[in-house]
Amino acid sequence: MFDIANVNSTLVDFDPVSGLSRTRKSLVRRLSHMKAIFHDRAAVDRTLQGEDPVIYEFYDMGMPETSGDVAFGTSIAYPGKIGDEYHMTKGHFHTVLDTAEVYYCLQGHGLMMMESPEGAVEVQELRKGMAVYVPGRYAHRSINISAEDPLVTFFAFPGHAGHDYGTIETKGFRKLVVERGGAPALIDNPLWIK
Amino acid sequence: MFDIANVNSTLVDFDPVSGLSRTRKSLVRRLSHMKAIFHDRAAVDRTLQGEDPVIYEFYDMGMPETSGDVAFGTSIAYPGKIGDEYHMTKGHFHTVLDTAEVYYCLQGHGLMMMESPEGAVEVQELRKGMAVYVPGRYAHRSINISAEDPLVTFFAFPGHAGHDYGTIETKGFRKLVVERGGAPALIDNPLWIK
Ligand SMILES: [Mn+2]
Ligand SMILES: [Mn+2]
Repeated sequence: MFDIANVNSTLVDFDPVSGLSRTRKSLVRRLSHMKAIFHDRAAVDRTLQGEDPVIYEFYDMGMPETSGDVAFGTSIAYPGKIGDEYHMTKGHFHTVLDTAEVYYCLQGHGLMMMESPEGAVEVQELRKGMAVYVPGRYAHRSINISAEDPLVTFFAFPGHAGHDYGTIETKGFRKLVVERGGAPALIDNPLWIK
Repeated sequence: MFDIANVNSTLVDFDPVSGLSRTRKSLVRRLSHMKAIFHDRAAVDRTLQGEDPVIYEFYDMGMPETSGDVAFGTSIAYPGKIGDEYHMTKGHFHTVLDTAEVYYCLQGHGLMMMESPEGAVEVQELRKGMAVYVPGRYAHRSINISAEDPLVTFFAFPGHAGHDYGTIETKGFRKLVVERGGAPALIDNPLWIK
């Protein structure tokens, strides 16, 4: 607006309905990238014979990885199920375990599944206008339980947090969210490894 | 949704149009609290003879003040001017100077004014769907340049950052945003103290 050189601050667009940016490239996670994440492996294989759907996408702004910085962006989980299991993100711990994260839901209907290393489980329900604070030490995963709408969230976490995907990839979460009688149900993960 | 005790995570509502929460109390900043912030002191006094308008309000979620936590909430600056100067927040540095902050604009049209201790000035324009990253070391102030709409932002910053309002209260920002010919103009602050 003014004749000012903005050299240190950053301006970025995230559409509040779709979550998508017109100027930044997202990281896209297709089903083939997440084959071992969904519990019904036969359903995974059946789906992949026809298509390789985008399960979710998100943005990494590449901010410096210091405790003074804030990593932020949007995350979009698309509606659908693999077998009876709702579309979801892979889920992760933070490498610096004791770091939190806030998610503000811009669109859709979903759940934030959280689990501590000791096995404490929390699940918060997200709708447009709700913010969930994931406390430090909890792994977290977004789950889209809407039949039709993307689950769009704006997230922010400390720059030095880091991502540990390996623990979840190996062990899974203790609980899963599947459709039972047309509605979400929380069940024990049959594949959870103690 | 499920029979789960959510004891460590937090769920909170922020209306995406108004920015307001139905469950949390905001901190409200009226003109009388900001008399020395606006440059036209005569206009401040004239306004206060008739009313003491809310200039802005915001939420403090009270998260722990550690580098692992994330302070977050919404900020709402109401439309209007005091004399020729647009409604704005007081503005502050972070006590831990080298901490950043992200603002995601949910409604309205405004500016993020930023200034480093060395006098570098940056101004980014905010509209719905734009996020601005305020880098560490920069004082920051939100300015509402819409004639009619509130400027609503969702913000997040490192839990340990702290607020230093005193420097700005004493010295002011080097630049002000005032209306000239019906549009925002950036001018030198006539009251800026070197
Ligand atoms: Mn995370
Ligand atoms: Mn701040």
